[in-house]
Formats: sequence, C-alpha cells, structure tokens
Amino acid sequence: MNTKRSLGLLLCSAIAMNAGAQSLQAIQPVSFSQVQITDSFWRPRMQTVSKVTVPVCIDQTEVKTPRIRNFEKVARHDGEKHEGIYFDDSDVYKALEAIAYSLKTYPDPAVEKKADEWIDKIAAAQQPDGYLNTFYTLNAPDKRWTDMEKHEDYCAGHLFEAAVAYYNTTGKKKLLQVATRFADHIDSTFRVPNRPWVSGHEEIELALVKLYKTTHQQKYLDLANWFIQQRGKGHGRGVIWDNWKNADYCQDSLPVEQQRQITGHAVRAMYLYTGVADVGAARNDEAYMNAMKAVWEDVVYRNMYITGGIGSSGHNEGFTTDYDLPNADAYCETCASVGMVFWNQRMNGLTGSSKYIDVLERSLYNGALDGLSLSGDRFFYGNPLASGGQHARQEWFGTACCPSNIARLIASLGDYVYGKSAQDIWVNLFVGSNTSIPLKNGAVQLQQQTGYPWTGDVKITVSPKRSQEFPLHIRIPGWAQQQPVPGATYFYNDHSDAAFTLTVNGTPVKYDMEDGYAVIKRSWKKNDVVHLQLPMEVRKVQAIDSIKQDRNRISLQRGPLVYCVEHADNAGDISNIILPANTVFTAAYDPSLLNGVVTLKGEVPVVKVAANGESVTTTQQTITAIPYFSWANRGKGQMEIWLPEKITSVNIKP
Amino acid sequence: MNTKRSLGLLLCSAIAMNAGAQSLQAIQPVSFSQVQITDSFWRPRMQTVSKVTVPVCIDQTEVKTPRIRNFEKVARHDGEKHEGIYFDDSDVYKALEAIAYSLKTYPDPAVEKKADEWIDKIAAAQQPDGYLNTFYTLNAPDKRWTDMEKHEDYCAGHLFEAAVAYYNTTGKKKLLQVATRFADHIDSTFRVPNRPWVSGHEEIELALVKLYKTTHQQKYLDLANWFIQQRGKGHGRGVIWDNWKNADYCQDSLPVEQQRQITGHAVRAMYLYTGVADVGAARNDEAYMNAMKAVWEDVVYRNMYITGGIGSSGHNEGFTTDYDLPNADAYCETCASVGMVFWNQRMNGLTGSSKYIDVLERSLYNGALDGLSLSGDRFFYGNPLASGGQHARQEWFGTACCPSNIARLIASLGDYVYGKSAQDIWVNLFVGSNTSIPLKNGAVQLQQQTGYPWTGDVKITVSPKRSQEFPLHIRIPGWAQQQPVPGATYFYNDHSDAAFTLTVNGTPVKYDMEDGYAVIKRSWKKNDVVHLQLPMEVRKVQAIDSIKQDRNRISLQRGPLVYCVEHADNAGDISNIILPANTVFTAAYDPSLLNGVVTLKGEVPVVKVAANGESVTTTQQTITAIPYFSWANRGKGQMEIWLPEKITSVNIKP
Repeated sequence: MNTKRSLGLLLCSAIAMNAGAQSLQAIQPVSFSQVQITDSFWRPRMQTVSKVTVPVCIDQTEVKTPRIRNFEKVARHDGEKHEGIYFDDSDVYKALEAIAYSLKTYPDPAVEKKADEWIDKIAAAQQPDGYLNTFYTLNAPDKRWTDMEKHEDYCAGHLFEAAVAYYNTTGKKKLLQVATRFADHIDSTFRVPNRPWVSGHEEIELALVKLYKTTHQQKYLDLANWFIQQRGKGHGRGVIWDNWKNADYCQDSLPVEQQRQITGHAVRAMYLYTGVADVGAARNDEAYMNAMKAVWEDVVYRNMYITGGIGSSGHNEGFTTDYDLPNADAYCETCASVGMVFWNQRMNGLTGSSKYIDVLERSLYNGALDGLSLSGDRFFYGNPLASGGQHARQEWFGTACCPSNIARLIASLGDYVYGKSAQDIWVNLFVGSNTSIPLKNGAVQLQQQTGYPWTGDVKITVSPKRSQEFPLHIRIPGWAQQQPVPGATYFYNDHSDAAFTLTVNGTPVKYDMEDGYAVIKRSWKKNDVVHLQLPMEVRKVQAIDSIKQDRNRISLQRGPLVYCVEHADNAGDISNIILPANTVFTAAYDPSLLNGVVTLKGEVPVVKVAANGESVTTTQQTITAIPYFSWANRGKGQMEIWLPEKITSVNIKP
Repeated sequence: MNTKRSLGLLLCSAIAMNAGAQSLQAIQPVSFSQVQITDSFWRPRMQTVSKVTVPVCIDQTEVKTPRIRNFEKVARHDGEKHEGIYFDDSDVYKALEAIAYSLKTYPDPAVEKKADEWIDKIAAAQQPDGYLNTFYTLNAPDKRWTDMEKHEDYCAGHLFEAAVAYYNTTGKKKLLQVATRFADHIDSTFRVPNRPWVSGHEEIELALVKLYKTTHQQKYLDLANWFIQQRGKGHGRGVIWDNWKNADYCQDSLPVEQQRQITGHAVRAMYLYTGVADVGAARNDEAYMNAMKAVWEDVVYRNMYITGGIGSSGHNEGFTTDYDLPNADAYCETCASVGMVFWNQRMNGLTGSSKYIDVLERSLYNGALDGLSLSGDRFFYGNPLASGGQHARQEWFGTACCPSNIARLIASLGDYVYGKSAQDIWVNLFVGSNTSIPLKNGAVQLQQQTGYPWTGDVKITVSPKRSQEFPLHIRIPGWAQQQPVPGATYFYNDHSDAAFTLTVNGTPVKYDMEDGYAVIKRSWKKNDVVHLQLPMEVRKVQAIDSIKQDRNRISLQRGPLVYCVEHADNAGDISNIILPANTVFTAAYDPSLLNGVVTLKGEVPVVKVAANGESVTTTQQTITAIPYFSWANRGKGQMEIWLPEKITSVNIKP
C-alpha cells in the first residue's frame, strides 16, 4: 500500500482510542476474551492445546524439569542452587499465559487450581524489593543486573504477559500485582541517570505496553520506550557475550528509529519490533513507524519464506543475507513465526493496511502452525521447507521456548480475528466465531461461520443492538486479488480470472476497496448476512530469481495454505518428482487424512530408477500434496514445498 | 607389513650408515644431485618447472610482491615497514630451493645469477647475532621470539632447506653459512634452561636434520630433537592464537612419542613427522618410530583420499574425523601431498618397507602433481576430488606456499627414485634415469628406461664397475600384487590374474619378495638388464563402507594413476554417468590430448534429460576418463573421480 495513504488513515483514525490509552492506532484488536471461537478448523486445535499441549507444558515445567522447583527453592531460603538454564523462568510464565488463554475457551477447575498454585510459588519467590528471577536469586544475588545478556528482563516480560492474560481470563489480580511490583522495581532501578541497559533478548518492551494497557499507568509505556531508546548507542555489554560481539545480533547497531534492515536473531527482532510498533502507536511516533515500515519491507520482501517463516540460519537463529533462503536447512524457528504474528498484528493496527494481516495469516497457518504436531504433544523448534527424512518433531527441548509459544498463540487466536475503532469494524481473519463489538453508537454482535481454510465461504451475521450505520471492513486476502504474494518476492505463475464475490442478504453489495479491505458502509440491522466467497483455486507460486534456492521451482498454494509433497502420500521418494507449470491439480477434502485436510492431486512426470540401478525412465504418476502444517505427522521421510518445474540435469544418488 | 619384521630389518641394516651421520636408517635415499632424470613423463615436467614455474616464482617473489623488497628494506635500515604476510620470507627460500634443484637438471647462468643476487640480499638482511626474519626486524625487532605462532622458526627451516639444496647443486656456501649462523643463533637462544618454544608451524625439525647431514654437526640434530621434545607439554603459547586454543591443531596435545593419531593442520603434521622420522632414524629412537608407524596407519587407513591427498577440511587446513572424506569439498592442500612424499620417503628409509613408497607414489602422481597445471603457471592450493565447475587453478595465492612447494618437489624428483645401503640397492620409483651408487664393494651404474606410468615396462641396466654380488631390491607396487590399496581403505572390486614378470637378460629370474620388494641377489656384471613388466589393467577401486561419501561408487586406477571423468571429454555433464562394476574399459595413449595421456574409454549408461525438461531416459554412451592430475587444464567444468556404480535414487536439479 501507499505509505502516504497509510499515514493518512492513521491520522484520520487518531480519534479511535482505546479507553484510557493515549493510542493513535488505526485499528484496535478485539481481545481474545471478547471472542468465542466456534471454528471447525481452529476450535479442535484449541481443544488439543487445552487438553494435550497445556498438560504437556505443565508436566514438563513442574515434574520433568526443575522450572517450578527453582521458585520453591527461592522461597525455602536454604542455600539450594538453581537448576537448568538461566532463562527457564520464562517457560513457567509462558505456560501460565497459555493456560490463561486456554481457560477462556475450555474452563478447567483443576488446571486453574494448578495455575493458582504456581502463582503462589512465583509470588513467594519475589524479593522484598520486587525483584524476581530464580537464577540470580539462588546462584548470585549480588550479581543481579550485571549482564545484559542473561535474560532477566526477558523473563520479566514473559511474567508481565502471563499476568495480563491471567487477569483477562480470570479477573484474578495476584500475578498482576507481582508483575507490577517487579515492573516498578525495574523502573526505579533503571530510569535513573547514567544507568544504561540494553536488553540482550528483547521482550520486555511489548510486555510493558500490555501492562500499560491493562493498568493504564503511563510509566510502563514510558519504561517500554526507555528500553527501546537504550539501543544502538554502544551501551550493550555482556559477560557471557564478551563486549557484545555482534551488535547486529540483537538489533543494537543503530538507534531503533534509524533501523531500516532486519538483522540478527529473528525472535529477538520480532519481539522488539512488536514493542516498537506498540509504543510507536501509543506515542504517535512517526520515526518509529517509518523505521518499522522499512524493516518490515526488508523482512517480507527479501528475507521471508513462502511459509511466513523467517530466520534462515540456525547459526545465529536468525537472518543472514538478503534472499538467502535455503529450504532443507531453513531454521525458521517456530517462535519467530509466532513473533511474525505479533508484529504484523501491531503493524496492521498502526497503519490500517491489510497487507500485514496477509503476512500474519501466512505465518499463522504455515510457519507457526507447523510447530505443533496434530497430536499436540510434539514440537518443531525449526521448521524446514524441505526434508531428506532427517526431521521430526520432538517431545521437548532444552531451550524450551517454542512449545509454550505455539500453545499460547493458538489458545489466544481470538486476539487476531477482529479489529475495531470507535465506529468501524474490521474482519481480519476468517475464523468461525462470535463476538460483540462496542461501537460509539452501540454494540454490534458478529457471528462468523466459515469452512475456511478448506472452503472460501465466509458468512458473517451482523446484528447491531439497534440499527446503525458503520463501515464494515472485510479483508480480501492478497492471494484472492490476483495480487502478487507480499512484496513480489513470490508470485503466481498462472493468471486467475476467479474473483471474490460479496453479497449482503443474498444481493451483491457496493463496497470500496480500501487498504486491502472491502468496506461496506450501510445501515446495518439485526441479522444482516454478509456472504464472502473467496476463490479457492490451486495457485502455483514461483519465487523471484534472487532466491536461488527456489529457481525453476514451483510451490502450491490454496487459500492461505502452502502445500508440500510428503513421503507418506507419494511412495517414499519425492526427490524424483517434476511439476510442470501446466499441471492441473484437483482439490478434495479427505476427512480421514491428517484429521481432515484438503489434498491436491495432480498427474506429473516422475523419474523412476530400474531395479538394477542402471537406467531411469519417466512415468506419469499421480502425486498428492498436503498442507505444509500437517507434514511430519506420519514418521520421518522426504518432504518438499518447492518442486522442480523442469529438469536441467539429474544428480545420481549412488 | 609386519612390525616385527620391519624392526628386524631396521636393526640388521644398522651398519648401513651415511658417512658422518650416526643414522640407523634401513635405506638411505640417493640424492637428486646423483640422479640424472631422462624420463619421458617426468623430464618434460621438470623442464616446465625450470622454464615456466621457476620464472613465475621469481617474478612473483621479486616483482609482483614485496617479498625480496622486504630483505632490501632490512639492509637499508631506514625505518621502512614490512609488507605482506609475516611468513613471506619462507616463499623466497622455497623459490630458491626450487631454483637449486632445477639448476641441476637445467643449468641456466641467468637464473643462477638471480639466485646469487637474492642470496646476497638475504645475507645482508641477517642481523649481527645471526637472526634473520624481515617481518620482525622491520616491524618489531624487540618482539622477536615472543609469539610461537608467527612462523619465525618455520621461515628459518625453509632457509636451511634452500641453503642445503643450493650447496648441493652449486657447491656455493654463502647461503649455507647464513643458515648455520641463524641455526646457531636459534640453538643458543633456545637450548638454555627454562626457555620453552613450541613451533606453531613445524618445519625447522626436518630442515635441521638436513643441515646436520650436510655439515655433520651433531648440534643441529640435537636441536631438531629439542624442538620435537618441546611438544605436548603445555608450553604452546601464541599472541595471534590466544592461549594455543586448540593444541591438536599443531600436534601439541601429547608428547610426540605418545602420539598415535593424526590431528590438525595437515602440512604442519607432515613436516613435523618427516622431521620425527628423520630424527628417529638418526637417533635410533624406537619410541619415535612406534609413534610414526601408528600415526601413519591413522593417516593412511582412515584419513587419506584415493589420490594420496590428506586434510579434508579447509576450515583447519587439516584433518577432521576418521573416514570423513568429502570429494567436492576436499581440501587436500597441495603442500600436504608434498609433505606426504617427504614423510613417506623417511618412513621407507626408517623401516625398509615398500608400502610407504606405494603411498609416496600415490601422493606424487595424483594429489601433488595435480597442484600444477600442464602449462606450469597455474596452481591448485586445494585439490578436490570432484567439481561442479567451481574449481580452477590460480595464478598465485596470498599465502603462496603451494607453487614453490610443488616446484621444488618436481625439480627434486631425483631424490625419490633410488635407495641404497652399504651393500644393497633399492629401486623405488619407475622413472627413466641414470645414477651411480657407491656400494661397499664398488660403484654400480644404473640406467632405468621406462614408459611408466603409461606402460608397465621397466628396463634397468645394472653395470657394476667390477662384477659384484649384491641384492637389488625392486619395488613391486601394491596395486601390481593384487593387494588391497594401502590399509584396505580402498580395494579392487575385481579380481585380476595379471601378475608382474621379472627377467634378467631375458631369462626369468629367481627373486624373494621382502617388504614389498622383489629382491634379486646375484653376481651382477656390466650391462645386466633387468626387465620388469607390471600389469597395467584398468582397475576398479571401491572404498570401505566407512567412507560414506564413496558408498556405491567406483573409481578407476591404472598403474599408479587415479583417473577422473571430466567435462571436456564428456559433453559437459558428468553428473549423469553410471559406472556399472562390469564395465570394460580400453586404455589407449592419446599423444594429442593433455600433452599426451593414456585415456580410458568405456560404454556406460548415461541419464539424459529431454529438451522440455520433463522426462529422462538412459542411453549407452562412451565415456572417457583421464588421469586425475591432468584435469582442470581445459577450463572450468564438472569432474568426478568416484562415479556411481548404480543409482539408488535421482535428484532432479531444476
């Protein structure tokens, strides 16, 4: 979208403030706590998270690892040492946050009791001055805040997020009080003259904004901004990370408002930029906004996978050079895709443009969702785009950031479906759900029913309490507008005449396209039914030539889903499949496969090796593609997203 | 061979001492200065080295780079700084050494005048106390001998080698005097109490032994041993290499006599072990011998390429883990293969076993010779065993160790052909040549005529001054004995009934096989003609399963030469060739190809891609293999030594 228009929208919408927050956001998200998910795709996944993933997180956090025990040791004061890694507290908080969201959809007294127990233990480990970190308190209380790379503030951030989530679901304030006491300690410790502190792993910035929006205390917003302002001034120092060896690694080479390029650790970058977009919106900071727009383009146009995954290298868990996007070796940490969802939501709120939701949806349905097995108890840390059979989801990880991260994302899906301002409603995601949105002229009930992402049918029943006129902005995904995939890094190699259709009460309706949304402005009355039909053809995607790993390759996409070809559906060997550009694919829902998925089937040439290993032939064979997120649920084996359009040469494997 | 027999031979031969040297070597090499090369394979290469490579080295050393200028600056005393890399002096010395050998075969007054000029400049740069190093003298005279990793002793070693070589060719002593003054300075500097010094790049040890053998001064042998004894005691320290971070890298983890495994930088290891074998022989040190035998087995049985190249990784220019022998990514530094020639010569001398010459020959004709272009003016630093087309020999290198190293090796080929003791003669290499070997009972003229390595015919005319009985040991290469290639790492997958034949004056002769040699003990008279016929079939070699990169692959060998399949003879694409084990190859000499080589031609299945890139077929096609050493002389392109015996799968390249 045009930057000037975006800024225009932002300024026009400046009056759409959240109660109490001095925000200039274009779009305010509607909280998960106000959205009831009824969706046939997502609700079973949220149930799995509630019934399987959350119990796994609880078991790992409390029983199988010493994470909760560290808190108990602090309370016992008997000289025991910390066990585990110095940032393990954060996993407790993220598990609690996942529990909080999950309890909203699936109340469970036993789980809530467990959460309350944990909260008691956390509170008991808080020091009299508000400080809370089991690693330092047990092992080196005199070394607090001496090493910027030891994640004390990162753990604090996750505490704040958990506290806000648990309060929003349960109304209970105990953890929120722990959080604000710790935040006050941090505020008084750092916001004094000559006390620089550059967070080695950003997170606290976005968390302080949540604390600010929940408590309406300006100091937390100011402290979030203080943390952002520390960066890029040469203050970064670490003990384990002598002299902050690579400032790019944690986005500390330039002041944030001067940053234009994505560098370093992908998750750190996503968390920072989520916080920057939050603070930029709340403070109406144009420098932050411009920085974020430029960095976003650098991510999405030059450094993002077709799956919405980012951070191609495991070496730095992050970015390398532009267009360096290896497939089998892709790192694409689950947490980084989760971070893409966070950041893009904020960018959408900041600018009003749907292009950020396009990317959010890409990361959510592909790169992030892939992090969790269908069973809910196996996790990918990295999410490769191709496999020779070496990859499998794991039960848990030493550094256990990803499991609770994907759990909290799915459990909080309600946060991403709708947006609002004082007199506008936005439908961002197509997820079966009910909500009530309080506009200036009265609340509006919305009921969304859809078979998305398997079908393109979306029915939205709009029921204002009293008839009222307001603009309803319905996102038309980029892929449904014959537009290039974001940033023209990826593009459709076929032309599609199929277009979306939009009716109200069965009659085609006038709408304006604004910032990627179809905007229907009319006087809405109870039970008006908006019917959106999105074209769900199978699209063939190619990458620009700069991405050398994808040259002469095609990937398949249908709706928001990126597809892959996996061993289990294709006789094991998929390295021998050719996918000519004119191949016709048929989409069909298979309820018995992978908990129900739409598969794509097409007849393509496949190279076959003779039994004696001394000759090859090509035969036509029907191949089956499945949604990328659903791979690796049937054992190890080959997988590819990008299939060769043609052969330039063959490499014989002996 | 059996270790006990080897040791037995060693002790029996203890009386076979070099004049003046207290050596217990089984076999003494006959010096290049006593051997006139007439060979049709090697003499043209020696001529190329003399007429092309040596002038390139002179031009690079004196004109294109500041290597000679650094010596001039030292003499000028006017505060100029050193240019280039701190070890650049060594390239001057190695160029001088190559010149020295080359002048023996191709006398050239202009080149000798240039060498004398350089020697004057080197002598003028020597400090009053004997110290000689342009880097420290120009840049930091007060920092001499403070950093074990800065190659002062390495440069000294190359000075000593050049001095000995130049003296042996010309009889001129000036450089030898510079060398002994510097050696005396080093001796008096270090062989004092509590003055540890671990050479960061070994070389001085073997060079001091040469100085000892030339001057007969025991102190140089003692100093060589002192350097060896410094290792493995935790003394290693470097400034650029803080705290000697990885002692394995330079063979400093254990005392040398306790070493059993090959580690670290391949060239450093080869130079050290050459010196250790030298010192071990001269001092009759069984601990050194046992260490060297064990380390040799570790190199040859687990860490050597079929080309005789070693050091698979460019990361450390050296060894990684056992059997880790990638082909396209092979480092195989030219200098390391040169070092293999040095070390294996010493091991043969030390033990009397031909298996070391088998390896020497393998490294010489393949891994080392590959380092030099046919034109003599292009060089490989690393010598990969496969190429996708990215590799090409270069004009020169910033670190320029390899060009002068391969030049000095080829120019000194005469050093490796014959061995002697007081009453035995050994023929180690099959190289057309004349020599006179002084046995206890009188000198013996030998004239060797052969078409080797293209033919297996070797004619040796033996002419004692007066008839005398002595054992003539003629090496029967391992590959000609239906034996496995060294150490059973590589083996022939086909059985061959072909055997070598041996006659004297046309009549089959009785011989004993001892230590890999056919030993003919008889009363020799003038013009006795020994005729050895070696079987020159094309052999198919396979690797043991532990070398995963070679699994299901076959390489071709004929005589001592490893073959490869290169783009220029095979329509560019060689990644599509299958080489079934039963393929019949025809060998034929092609005088017009690559200055004359024997090619191997066979009809094999080749995978072809259809023009539209959507199908493949297999057709029979005649492929041509060329000697590995001769590849990369016709532009960049694909090359493989190890071809797939069969296809298990194909990998489509889009």
